[in-house]
Amino acid sequence: MRILVINPNISEALTNLIAEETRRAASPGTELLFATAPFGVEYIETRMEAVIGGYASACIAAERYGEYDGVIIDAFGDPGLLGIKELLDVPVVGMTEAALASACLLGQRFSIIAISSRIKAWYLETVERSHLTTRLASIRSLNDNLRSISTVQEDHTERLKELAVQAVEQDGADVIILAGAPLAGLARSIEGQLPVPVVDGVSSAVRHCESLIALKPGHAVKGSFARPPLKPNKGLPPALAALLNRTR
Amino acid sequence: MRILVINPNISEALTNLIAEETRRAASPGTELLFATAPFGVEYIETRMEAVIGGYASACIAAERYGEYDGVIIDAFGDPGLLGIKELLDVPVVGMTEAALASACLLGQRFSIIAISSRIKAWYLETVERSHLTTRLASIRSLNDNLRSISTVQEDHTERLKELAVQAVEQDGADVIILAGAPLAGLARSIEGQLPVPVVDGVSSAVRHCESLIALKPGHAVKGSFARPPLKPNKGLPPALAALLNRTR
Amino acid sequence: MRILVINPNISEALTNLIAEETRRAASPGTELLFATAPFGVEYIETRMEAVIGGYASACIAAERYGEYDGVIIDAFGDPGLLGIKELLDVPVVGMTEAALASACLLGQRFSIIAISSRIKAWYLETVERSHLTTRLASIRSLNDNLRSISTVQEDHTERLKELAVQAVEQDGADVIILAGAPLAGLARSIEGQLPVPVVDGVSSAVRHCESLIALKPGHAVKGSFARPPLKPNKGLPPALAALLNRTR
Amino acid sequence: MRILVINPNISEALTNLIAEETRRAASPGTELLFATAPFGVEYIETRMEAVIGGYASACIAAERYGEYDGVIIDAFGDPGLLGIKELLDVPVVGMTEAALASACLLGQRFSIIAISSRIKAWYLETVERSHLTTRLASIRSLNDNLRSISTVQEDHTERLKELAVQAVEQDGADVIILAGAPLAGLARSIEGQLPVPVVDGVSSAVRHCESLIALKPGHAVKGSFARPPLKPNKGLPPALAALLNRTR
Amino acid sequence: MRILVINPNISEALTNLIAEETRRAASPGTELLFATAPFGVEYIETRMEAVIGGYASACIAAERYGEYDGVIIDAFGDPGLLGIKELLDVPVVGMTEAALASACLLGQRFSIIAISSRIKAWYLETVERSHLTTRLASIRSLNDNLRSISTVQEDHTERLKELAVQAVEQDGADVIILAGAPLAGLARSIEGQLPVPVVDGVSSAVRHCESLIALKPGHAVKGSFARPPLKPNKGLPPALAALLNRTR
Amino acid sequence: MRILVINPNISEALTNLIAEETRRAASPGTELLFATAPFGVEYIETRMEAVIGGYASACIAAERYGEYDGVIIDAFGDPGLLGIKELLDVPVVGMTEAALASACLLGQRFSIIAISSRIKAWYLETVERSHLTTRLASIRSLNDNLRSISTVQEDHTERLKELAVQAVEQDGADVIILAGAPLAGLARSIEGQLPVPVVDGVSSAVRHCESLIALKPGHAVKGSFARPPLKPNKGLPPALAALLNRTR
Repeated sequence: MRILVINPNISEALTNLIAEETRRAASPGTELLFATAPFGVEYIETRMEAVIGGYASACIAAERYGEYDGVIIDAFGDPGLLGIKELLDVPVVGMTEAALASACLLGQRFSIIAISSRIKAWYLETVERSHLTTRLASIRSLNDNLRSISTVQEDHTERLKELAVQAVEQDGADVIILAGAPLAGLARSIEGQLPVPVVDGVSSAVRHCESLIALKPGHAVKGSFARPPLKPNKGLPPALAALLNRTR
Repeated sequence: MRILVINPNISEALTNLIAEETRRAASPGTELLFATAPFGVEYIETRMEAVIGGYASACIAAERYGEYDGVIIDAFGDPGLLGIKELLDVPVVGMTEAALASACLLGQRFSIIAISSRIKAWYLETVERSHLTTRLASIRSLNDNLRSISTVQEDHTERLKELAVQAVEQDGADVIILAGAPLAGLARSIEGQLPVPVVDGVSSAVRHCESLIALKPGHAVKGSFARPPLKPNKGLPPALAALLNRTR
Repeated sequence: MRILVINPNISEALTNLIAEETRRAASPGTELLFATAPFGVEYIETRMEAVIGGYASACIAAERYGEYDGVIIDAFGDPGLLGIKELLDVPVVGMTEAALASACLLGQRFSIIAISSRIKAWYLETVERSHLTTRLASIRSLNDNLRSISTVQEDHTERLKELAVQAVEQDGADVIILAGAPLAGLARSIEGQLPVPVVDGVSSAVRHCESLIALKPGHAVKGSFARPPLKPNKGLPPALAALLNRTR
Repeated sequence: MRILVINPNISEALTNLIAEETRRAASPGTELLFATAPFGVEYIETRMEAVIGGYASACIAAERYGEYDGVIIDAFGDPGLLGIKELLDVPVVGMTEAALASACLLGQRFSIIAISSRIKAWYLETVERSHLTTRLASIRSLNDNLRSISTVQEDHTERLKELAVQAVEQDGADVIILAGAPLAGLARSIEGQLPVPVVDGVSSAVRHCESLIALKPGHAVKGSFARPPLKPNKGLPPALAALLNRTR
Repeated sequence: MRILVINPNISEALTNLIAEETRRAASPGTELLFATAPFGVEYIETRMEAVIGGYASACIAAERYGEYDGVIIDAFGDPGLLGIKELLDVPVVGMTEAALASACLLGQRFSIIAISSRIKAWYLETVERSHLTTRLASIRSLNDNLRSISTVQEDHTERLKELAVQAVEQDGADVIILAGAPLAGLARSIEGQLPVPVVDGVSSAVRHCESLIALKPGHAVKGSFARPPLKPNKGLPPALAALLNRTR
Repeated sequence: MRILVINPNISEALTNLIAEETRRAASPGTELLFATAPFGVEYIETRMEAVIGGYASACIAAERYGEYDGVIIDAFGDPGLLGIKELLDVPVVGMTEAALASACLLGQRFSIIAISSRIKAWYLETVERSHLTTRLASIRSLNDNLRSISTVQEDHTERLKELAVQAVEQDGADVIILAGAPLAGLARSIEGQLPVPVVDGVSSAVRHCESLIALKPGHAVKGSFARPPLKPNKGLPPALAALLNRTR
C-alpha cells in the first residue's frame, strides 16, 4: 500500500523529521511518499495559519491524486482534514485524530504536551472538534522562544518530560500525547522514561492509516463525507478542480 | 464606519442578494463595500468547499486591508472566520455566528432552515464550534434539487415556511434561523407569517458588526486572537504575506 | 425607538451609572427611559435576591407597558429575563446575555470579572442557562468588602485590571467581560489598557436591543415564548394582571 | 418533625390534591403544614408564572419561618427553589428535584409525562438546571385543553398511561415521572399498570425532605447557599425583610 | 421492611463500620441485614477491584434473595450496581448514587473528599456514570499511606476537614461528600464543624433505600432494567443462575 | 507478536466466528490465541451479564498471563475492559472502543447497528464511557427474536443493511458500526453494498491491538491505569491473586 504523508508546513526540515519517524513506525511493505506545503508558513500554530495549511494540503492531495491508497495530514491541528476526507475516496488520517485514537485506547484521560503557549488554543479546538474535551486532562506547553523548530527535541527534552510528569501527577493524565511534528520521534527516544504510556502523532498516523486501508471499510457515496455536489467552480488549481468536477 | 462584506462564494448573483439585504438592514451612515470570492465554488455546502472559501476570504480581507473598520464573512458556516479574526485588528463577524447571537437573544432554542440536505452536516458543525448544540432544536432542509441558487426564494418560500412551522410545532423551536446567503431577505419578505421570531444571518451580521465597531472593545494583542507570531512564510499572495509579516 | 432600561436593584446611584453608560452607547435617535426597582435589595448578588429582582422587573415592565419598543433588564444575572420575554411582545434583552453575545462575537473563550466572590455562583448559573459554560474560561472576582457599590470603579480599577490580565494569561481568555452594573462604563474608561477585547454589559445591551428592534424579527405567538395561557390569577399588581389577562 | 408544604399556585383544589398524597406518603410522626400562594396564577406552566410563583413561595416561607424543620416547594419546575434554599437554614426540597432524585435511583434514563404541551419548555429548563438532560429520555404531554386542573386524573388517566408506555418503548425510558401537582397520587392509583417504575414528585418530595431533616447534614454558612449578604432593602413584606436582615 | 446491606470489600472491620452508621441512620422499624464479600480485596480503590467487587456483590444478592425488600451496595463507586438492579425486583441503592442524590438536594455543586489519591479516577468515573460531572466542584484526597482502613477517621479527621474547607473556599463546593465506607459516620461525628452541608454515603443510602421501598414505584418488566433475557448460562453460583433462569 | 482474544461469552460458536474474522484481519506474523469464557452467559446483552463477563475475562487474562503481548476483549460493551487494563502491563483493547476508534477516523458521526433491542441501553452506556455520545447518530437494532446467535448473519443480513441505510439517510450517520460478535465478518461480506464506510469491531480490535503493540507506548506505573495497590485479598482464582500480589 502507498501512503502520501503531507506536511502542511513549508519547512523541509519538518518533513524530514516526519519522514524519519514515519519510516520507523510503518509496517513492512508500506510505501511512503512525502510532500511539503508549497505555500504557507514555517510552522502552523494558529487558526489563520491552519486556514492556509488546510488549503495547501488539499491542493497537494489533489495534485498527487492517483499515486496513493491513503493520505496523512501531518500537522497537529489537522488543517483541512475533514474537507480533504470529502474530496478523496481513500482513508485520510490527521496527526491529531490519530494521536487521540491511540490515547483513547491506552487510557481514559490524556494530556497534550505542546511546544508553544500560542498553539494551545488551536489544539484545544482540535480536541473539541473530536468531541473529546471531557477526556482531556490538560494541555501544557513550553513557554520559551524556540531557537528553531527543528531543534526543539535537542533543546527541550528535559522540560517536556517535566511537563508530562506534571500532567500525570497534577492533572490526572493516564496518557501523554507529545504534540506537533517538531516532536516526531521523541516518544520513541524517551521510551520508558515516563510513568504512563506516551503517544506520538506521527507514528500513530501511519499505523492507523495502514489499518484503515487494510480493513477496507469502503468510502462514502452518501452522507456528509461523500464528494461535494457538482457545481460551477473557478480559479482553482487544475488538479483540485478536476477532483471537484468528477462525476461518480 | 466602513464595512467590507465578503461573499466567500464565486457567485455574483449571491453577492447581489447579500448586498440588497445588507443595505436594507444597515444603519444610516454605514458605508458598505462588497467583494466576491475570486476563486472557489458557486455555493459552499461542504467542509471541502469551506476550506477553499475560507482561504479565499482571507485573501480578500488582506487585499482590501485598510479600506474598512469591520469585516463580514457572509456565508453560513463562517468559512475561515476564526482565522481571519486573528489576522485583522478590526471586528470580523460571520453570518452564522451573527444569526446565532440574534437567535439566542430572542429565545432559548432555535431551529435552522436550510436549502439542501447536504449542507446540514456543515451547519451542525458550525453550531458545534459555537458550543450551542444544546440550544439547537433542529436543522430542517429542502430536499429538492434547486433550479438555481438565486431563485430559491422564488421557488421554495412556501416549503421553507412549512419547514419552519414543523420546527416550532414538532421540534420545540422558539426562533427560526433562515440559513444561507440564498435566503437573504426572506425573513423580511415573510414578516409576520411565522408564529415565532425569524432571524436572517445577513441582516444580523451587518447590525452586529456595526455594534462591535461602535462599542470599541479593543483588539487582541495577547491570547489566541492576537496576530499569528512572526515566522517565515512563502508562496502567499503579497497582501496576505504583508499582514503576516507586520510587526506590531 | 424607545427603550425602557430597568435596574432590578433599588439603588438610584446604580440607575444613574447605568443611564450614563447607556446614553453614551446608544445610537442617535434612540429614546431611553429608565426605571429603578421599587422594592428589593440594593445590589443583587444571590439567587434569592434575583427572585425578588425578577418579580420587581416584571412589575415595572407591566406598569410601563405601551411606552417602549424594547426592554433591557440591566443586572448581571438577568433576573426574571426569560419570563419577561414571554410577557411582552417586544424585544427584551438582559445585561448578561448581551455581554455574552458580544463576547462570543469577539473571541472563542471569555472570562468574567466580578466585584464580589459571593456573586460568582449566580454568574456561573447565568452562563449555564445560556449553555455557554464550555466557552467560559474563568470567573475572577474582587474579594474585598466594598466601600460602596457606587465607588467600585473609583476604588478598584487597578485590581480589576490585574484580574483581567490573569484571566488572559492563566485562564486562556480571549475576551474580558466586566460584569455587573457597578462596572458600567469601566470598559470605556480603560480602553486600550487590556491586551484583549473588553465587553461591558450595559453598552452591549442597548446596542443589541436596538438591533433586535431594527431587525423586526417578529414575536412569538406559539412556542415557549408566546404569552402565558389565559387562566385565573389573583393578588397581582393591576398592570401585570392586565398583561396576563390579554386576549390575543 | 414539621414540614411546610408550599403550593406556589393559587388553587386551593391543587393544595388539597397535594395534601392528600403528601399525607399518604409521609412517615409516621411527620407533622405536615400546607400553604397556598396568596397571589399568582391558578397553575404555573411558564417561566413568567414561575417568576411570580417563586416570589410568592419565598414570601410564604418567610411568613411561616419558625414553624417548620423543612420546606417543600410543590410545583413541578421548582419556582424560586434555589433562592429559598439560600434564605432558610433548614432543608428545602422542590417537587422536580425530588422526582429527579427518585428517578435517578431507580434507573438510568427517565421520561417526564406532563399535562400540557406548553409546560414542556419549562420542565426541560428545570431538568437542565439539575444538569440531567443527558439522562432525560423524553418529555411527552397531553395536548388537549384541560376541563379543569383538578380533574386531569379523572379525565386523562388512560392517555397518560399511553404516553408513558410510548416513552418506555420508543424513547428508552427506564423510569416514568408523572409530573405536576395535578397528577399527585396518580402513580399510587395506577400502581402495577406500567412496565417500569413510576415516580410521583409530591410523595418523593416529602420522603426526601424527611430524609434530609433526619440526616442532619448541617446548613451553609459559607458558599453560595449561605444567607445573602446583609445590605439595604426596601418595599419587601416584613417577614421577608426580617430574614434578609438577620445577623448570623 | 428488611434491607440487605452489602459490603463489596472483604473487610469485616469495614462491615462493622458500615453497620454502625447504618443502624444510627435507619428509621425505626427497618430491619437491617449485613453481608461481607466472600471474595475480593480488602478495600476497593480501582476499576479492577470494582470488577471483582461487583461480581461478588451480585453473588451475595442472589444468595440472599428472598430475605430482603431492598439492597444497598455500600462501597463508594457502586460496583456492579446497575447490573444488580436488573437482576432484582426490589430497590437497589448504591452508596455513591445515594450520596449524590443527597448532595444534589442540598446544593448545586459538591466536592468529594476521598481517602486516597488512587481512588480519585474511579470516583470521577462513577460521577460520570451519573452524568453529574458538571456539578462536581472537585475531588480532593488524602495522599498519605494509610495505617489501616479502619483507623482512617481516628488518624486523619483534621486533614479531611481541611480538605473540605479548601473545597468550599477554593473550588466553590456548596456541599461536601465524605466518600468511602471507611469514613462512614464521620459526617455525624463532625456535625457543625464544616461551613456547608456534609453528606455521608452510608446514611444516605439507608434513608433513600427506605424511601424507595415505601414509595412503591414498581419494578421494571420492560426497558433496560428488566431482568436479563432468558438464555443458556453455565458455571455460575446456583443462586445466581437461579435468578437468571427465572421465568416471569 | 502474540495476541490473546477473549470471548467473554460462553458460546464456542461465537468464539469461532470471532476467530475467523480475526484471522482474516490480522497482519502477517501475528500469532493469535483464543479463549472462551468458562462461566457466564451465552451472549451478553445487559449490564448484569457484563458484570459476569467482565470478571470472567479478568480471570482468563490472569490465567493466560505470560502467553501474550496484547489482549482483546471481544464483546461489544467491553466488559471489564478498564479494570483489565489496570491489571496487565500490555495493551488491552475492547471491541467497542476499537470500533469507535475506527469510526472516528472515518467520519464525524456514526451509527451502531445492533442485533437486539435490549442490547441498546448497554451499548449507549458503553459509548458514554468513551465520552462520544455527541458523535453517535443513532443506535438501531433488530427487534425479532433470534433463531440463534450464530445464524444472525444468515438470517438477517438484508434487514441489517436496511437499518444501516436508515441510519445514513434519517439519522445523519457518516459511518456504520455493525456491532456485536455475532456480526463479526459481516462488514467484509457486504463490502461495497452500503453507501458509507462500515466498521467491524472484531477486525478493528486486532488491527488496533497490533498497532499499540508495535508503537511501544509503554505502560502505566503511575496514574489510574497502574496496577492496583498491594493489599490483602481472598477467595480469588490463584492466577488473578498472583497478578494482584505482584510487587513491581
